[in-house]
Amino acid sequence: MTDINKANEQAVSRMMEARPILKGVAPARDVIPGMKPNLLLHAGPPIEWARMSGPLRGAVIGALIFEGLAKTEQEAVALVEKGEIEFAPCHHHDTVGPMAGVTSSSMMVYILENETHGNKAYSNLNEGYGKVLRYGAFSEEVIAKLRWMNESMGPLLAKAIEASGGIDIRTLLSESLHMGDEGHNRNKAGSIIYTAKLAPWIAKVAADNDVESEVLKALGENALSVLNPVMAACKAMSASAHGVEGSTMVTTMARNGTDFGMRVSGLGDQWFTAAAEVPDGLYFPSFTSKDANPDIGDSTITETAGIGAFAMAAAPAIVTFVSGTPQDALNATLEMYEITIAEHSHFTIPQLEFRGTPTGIDIRKVVELGITPRVNTGIAHREAGVGQVGAGLVRPPMKIFEDALIAYAQHYNL
Amino acid sequence: MTDINKANEQAVSRMMEARPILKGVAPARDVIPGMKPNLLLHAGPPIEWARMSGPLRGAVIGALIFEGLAKTEQEAVALVEKGEIEFAPCHHHDTVGPMAGVTSSSMMVYILENETHGNKAYSNLNEGYGKVLRYGAFSEEVIAKLRWMNESMGPLLAKAIEASGGIDIRTLLSESLHMGDEGHNRNKAGSIIYTAKLAPWIAKVAADNDVESEVLKALGENALSVLNPVMAACKAMSASAHGVEGSTMVTTMARNGTDFGMRVSGLGDQWFTAAAEVPDGLYFPSFTSKDANPDIGDSTITETAGIGAFAMAAAPAIVTFVSGTPQDALNATLEMYEITIAEHSHFTIPQLEFRGTPTGIDIRKVVELGITPRVNTGIAHREAGVGQVGAGLVRPPMKIFEDALIAYAQHYNL
Repeated sequence: MTDINKANEQAVSRMMEARPILKGVAPARDVIPGMKPNLLLHAGPPIEWARMSGPLRGAVIGALIFEGLAKTEQEAVALVEKGEIEFAPCHHHDTVGPMAGVTSSSMMVYILENETHGNKAYSNLNEGYGKVLRYGAFSEEVIAKLRWMNESMGPLLAKAIEASGGIDIRTLLSESLHMGDEGHNRNKAGSIIYTAKLAPWIAKVAADNDVESEVLKALGENALSVLNPVMAACKAMSASAHGVEGSTMVTTMARNGTDFGMRVSGLGDQWFTAAAEVPDGLYFPSFTSKDANPDIGDSTITETAGIGAFAMAAAPAIVTFVSGTPQDALNATLEMYEITIAEHSHFTIPQLEFRGTPTGIDIRKVVELGITPRVNTGIAHREAGVGQVGAGLVRPPMKIFEDALIAYAQHYNL
Repeated sequence: MTDINKANEQAVSRMMEARPILKGVAPARDVIPGMKPNLLLHAGPPIEWARMSGPLRGAVIGALIFEGLAKTEQEAVALVEKGEIEFAPCHHHDTVGPMAGVTSSSMMVYILENETHGNKAYSNLNEGYGKVLRYGAFSEEVIAKLRWMNESMGPLLAKAIEASGGIDIRTLLSESLHMGDEGHNRNKAGSIIYTAKLAPWIAKVAADNDVESEVLKALGENALSVLNPVMAACKAMSASAHGVEGSTMVTTMARNGTDFGMRVSGLGDQWFTAAAEVPDGLYFPSFTSKDANPDIGDSTITETAGIGAFAMAAAPAIVTFVSGTPQDALNATLEMYEITIAEHSHFTIPQLEFRGTPTGIDIRKVVELGITPRVNTGIAHREAGVGQVGAGLVRPPMKIFEDALIAYAQHYNL
């Protein structure tokens, strides 16, 4: 037991000491290890086409059209069914993607570097609200937006981030948690901190006033523009805590829209999976829970790293779009202290007298107390091509924690 | 009594319905009514040179050097002592200025227009931290910064704000109160919202990438860059509530570093004044309360309009620089409900289940309950030429409320 606690202390310390810096933007094929033209990365644990949910299928179709590998939905589906496209979890390639998380070889991605331990992580650019690929939409306007992001926004961001010398995302998160964000579903403050930090560098390197203006507008008006760098930062942090011999700390939680998957620091690359649940939440006008797809996305990397629903006490205003009251938000954080290893040394909550956020989920505590982690999330329509229908709260299935604990006992001969 | 309550309802409703829009930036002489070359506006109630405190004297000296009316401190003082310079409260010219508040005819000022009632208000540009005129510093670097603000920043802001069509400061404040600001001493969120909103317009109109980059950096890195438009917005709101026959609502609170002054909606232009107190707070390294000047600045217009210390419950992180605990911040707001007329219809506090901020100080309640308004403030060194030494909390003297209540009884023959 002492050894397990020691291993967990080591894992959580590595995660908190990791200092992820946003270092650049580049095409996925140039930077993501193992990326290739016929490979699509997706959110969550591994899954084959036959079992993919509507929004993930929609995003696959859109990505193939975006890549020029198919012209229509039918062509895209045929290509996949002929076995010409390979799929792999983002997490197998040091990458994370919100919602469907589909990342293809031409897409511009953020490059995060953990300056403490040297590992890198990647995430695509955020598309904003409305009809977007990550929620499974793939109409012409979706593809046009992706092209603009790749051809206008991405290159300008790349130049500006390079000129800036890098943006410390851990510091940005520390600030944004003092400004009403929880870093997952509410990134309002973080996104404008990000915009304000980049703006002087964008101004310095921009060649065209109109493109520059459009990019600054897209960054500043999208309350999720920093979500993707934040997710990649959380990935860089949690990845540095993976592989600590004997640790029962969770280092990955991710959903593909069908399964919820988890990995544990001391249990190698094995995924523990079970059916993903449908979130409880607030729906956009004309939609109900009947339209909702089960839980999807790699954004649970935020809760894995000690923010998101775990930091909800810092974000009382979030209840206006995920449901509940400010007291519920406070209680969410307080409950998560029960199942975590540490209080974060960099992420603090003013509302709780600057207590560190609950950080590092211990699978032993989850099973012993019967308390699963809390997750804030967007809700996708269950059919391909529709998009977001709401936002809410969800938890992973208890089964994955029980399975992991059994696997742990077997692996370590307990 | 019913009539007084009715008058107060009318006054507070006018204040809350006022919708101040930032419409432009221009030299004070071109827009502020009655502005002229030998006139200096200052914070607080009227005061003559002989009674001015150190920081106000310092700012007067700096402004005269900035205007080219004097070359040295000695020349500036001689000019004033010869009676060549006129002084008037900013408030007599629809203007407000933080700390010393000294505003001279060449200085670029923000123009706020209340679109509901048509009145306008003005405030100078914020200089940022360190050695600044508003804290009474007047060294060469202070003057150089003022010149850069007037020649580079001001004209670019003017063009960008015009291109934007105007920025709704009431909406900005509603958002920033959900992001940990209270709008007076903590404007971290508001300042980056402001930067992010202006950035696309600055990008559109900028002619020089380097100037543009410097301006965006100055706006985004100064956590007080939006304070001055916010103060002018509060002035536009409270001015629209002034002059309501029979109302006991406070429409001005302002300090000149020597006296704390107040005006009441139903009592015309009469100032009620008493000696300003020294704030309680946290001091910068090497300074103590012995270095502190008494309370100074027009920024109490924020508390007058229902934000600032009145909204402190929304800003738990502020205690790191004004002292106290997050619970104290909550209690500050709760106490202010005791002496106010309404809960604000646009400014709400997530931490209090989205309750409106306490708005519209009733001098009757202040005297009856013995509770004076709370104020968050910066603290200036008591000598000319030094600058800021800390930040903290203060209250106006009870005497001005008692005097006002007596004047009210006399005026209305009660």
